[in-house]
Amino acid sequence: MASHVLQSHPRATGLAEETVKSHQADCEIVLHGGWFCPFTQKCWVALEERGIPYKYVETNPFNKDPALLALNPKGLIPALTYQGKPLHDSHVILEFLEDAYPQHKPQLRPTDPYNAAQARIWVDVINKYIVPGYFRIFHAQTPELQAAAMSEWLKYLQCFADKIRGPYFFGEEFSIVDLSLTPWIIRDWILVENRGFNRENVSPKFAAYCQLIVNRPNVLKTFSNKECYEAIYALHLSGQMKSSILEAIKSGRPLP
Amino acid sequence: MASHVLQSHPRATGLAEETVKSHQADCEIVLHGGWFCPFTQKCWVALEERGIPYKYVETNPFNKDPALLALNPKGLIPALTYQGKPLHDSHVILEFLEDAYPQHKPQLRPTDPYNAAQARIWVDVINKYIVPGYFRIFHAQTPELQAAAMSEWLKYLQCFADKIRGPYFFGEEFSIVDLSLTPWIIRDWILVENRGFNRENVSPKFAAYCQLIVNRPNVLKTFSNKECYEAIYALHLSGQMKSSILEAIKSGRPLP
Repeated sequence: MASHVLQSHPRATGLAEETVKSHQADCEIVLHGGWFCPFTQKCWVALEERGIPYKYVETNPFNKDPALLALNPKGLIPALTYQGKPLHDSHVILEFLEDAYPQHKPQLRPTDPYNAAQARIWVDVINKYIVPGYFRIFHAQTPELQAAAMSEWLKYLQCFADKIRGPYFFGEEFSIVDLSLTPWIIRDWILVENRGFNRENVSPKFAAYCQLIVNRPNVLKTFSNKECYEAIYALHLSGQMKSSILEAIKSGRPLP
Repeated sequence: MASHVLQSHPRATGLAEETVKSHQADCEIVLHGGWFCPFTQKCWVALEERGIPYKYVETNPFNKDPALLALNPKGLIPALTYQGKPLHDSHVILEFLEDAYPQHKPQLRPTDPYNAAQARIWVDVINKYIVPGYFRIFHAQTPELQAAAMSEWLKYLQCFADKIRGPYFFGEEFSIVDLSLTPWIIRDWILVENRGFNRENVSPKFAAYCQLIVNRPNVLKTFSNKECYEAIYALHLSGQMKSSILEAIKSGRPLP
């Protein structure tokens, strides 16, 4: 089903298409990602923010191609190769880029150890609660389940929003905490149009924060034309999407 | 209920009691932990392995004492203070100790960025699959559910065991990957005696690996007398335990 949609929309469009075109030369970092994939976008924005040279390879995770399985046994994107060696998991990749390229400024993980630990605590809140909450709202097929999922999501977002120092989570600098939420903020219009979400319902501070995030040039540069996402998200909204993420949410297991 | 058991067993015993007694002086690191808590033990072993000075404070997480809630809004242990500032989450604490005390050798997180990323991938497998699987077996109250939970757990352990280079996960050095599994290996006799677990059923290599882990002096130094754990684990085994970990597992949400 999703594979079918990807036949009609096989690659990045709009600003993201330009970014892909300018990252086709061989590099020690190769990002195997999907134009539609929020987890890919996290890593992609990090590479752009930090000016790390990379090659982008569009990869369809629904085919479970042997080449992808060799990079990531879970068959998920993003996968990354570094000097030919594979890595996966978007958070692991973010930490790796910080560790392997300290000379590329700005670093997105705070360099002070205590602040880095605080960043990891909040990234974990995003990954454990906010991200599955986003998919849970999509997946809910009755008004009651949608309302319950939305109410829970707003609670998590409010908990997060209360701690935003402003303008970014930790103050002046865009960090891995902001980045870990970015792909879901720039994709929230689907929930606005189909599930009644409103950033202002979290808080005016959160709405201003989101506005800043979605206008960062490197976020826009890694985002395709909206109608392409809509073709994929229609599957989520109607409960027809099949993915290991949704399977995990349905069965109450952690996201893979 | 658990609080009741902790009234009879309020503090560490055996070798762990000696370790607590020798860590009562003020230090910039204070570990607020529970003698019975596997997540505490992870951090405790790290402090001992690396010779980082620390003060140990026995903390009852079932009381939700305001002092604990100030350290960790979730009211969970372990919590740590560093120069008076709070941190929580056992994996975050392990990463923090690596970042903040690089001069204390051996480091338990590989210093090469690619190997550090591989370590994080495997720590994540342990935390997302193996640890909840352990509690799921405890929690299962019918032979059918117990068999299903055990079968799933063996599958995860076999996947892990296949990658053990030997003698430790990455070879000669004990790392955060081994450490992240350690508390559950040293507590597996409860599953042996009550749920039919056998390390040899994972693989002979895994059994040898476990033997090495549970005999590390710093693992033994942070472990109390077995009968004290049995008093607590009886609650798990009979389905009477109430904890946020079990609530998360029952409701199919990530561990807090």
